[in-house]
Amino acid sequence: MAVVRKMEDVPERNMSDGKEIVGVTKRLLIGPVEGAPTFAVRLFTLAPGGHTPAHAHPYEHGVVVLSGRGEVHTAQGAKALEASTVVWMPPGEHHQFRNTGTEPLKFLCVVPAAVEKT
Amino acid sequence: MAVVRKMEDVPERNMSDGKEIVGVTKRLLIGPVEGAPTFAVRLFTLAPGGHTPAHAHPYEHGVVVLSGRGEVHTAQGAKALEASTVVWMPPGEHHQFRNTGTEPLKFLCVVPAAVEKT
Repeated sequence: MAVVRKMEDVPERNMSDGKEIVGVTKRLLIGPVEGAPTFAVRLFTLAPGGHTPAHAHPYEHGVVVLSGRGEVHTAQGAKALEASTVVWMPPGEHHQFRNTGTEPLKFLCVVPAAVEKT
Repeated sequence: MAVVRKMEDVPERNMSDGKEIVGVTKRLLIGPVEGAPTFAVRLFTLAPGGHTPAHAHPYEHGVVVLSGRGEVHTAQGAKALEASTVVWMPPGEHHQFRNTGTEPLKFLCVVPAAVEKT
């Protein structure tokens, strides 16, 4: 059955380890709980100065920025992020997301369903 | 290689047929062109009074509303849509999205990659 809810009502999980990952929370908007067979949709919120790990992995990201300002760093350098920026991150590419602004940086990140099932 | 761009810079396609589909455009933000193997991310814009077809299909939708106001109609009735509403639409469920407001209704809709490859 269809599920309709506000993203604010989805539980928020602190992802930070204080080293590789700083000021990051995640909401699993659509995933294994809903029985999603193909993809998962997550909302990440990075506090000012926060960042995701600088890493690579064998699966892809589809990212859409909702609000805030930041940068995505790849082997090709840094590119600016703001509301309505779309990022296609292919499997295997090294990357890091950083909040360079003064407000929370919020972005959706779509991954294959298996990423959230493990 | 990573692709970073604004959603406004992605070509917009008119989806309307004036009957089943009214006032609907689509931007394929992430899909076959990027080589996305698992999912496609589309931006739909519904003009005031516009609506998607009332239909069902064997694949799922992951929807996040960006702006505007509307409703999603399913066998369980109508539910309100506004910015930050998340909709999980399982495979096979009958549904229709409608703009009931005075501004464009914009939402992201994630589907399995095969949907955009055909």
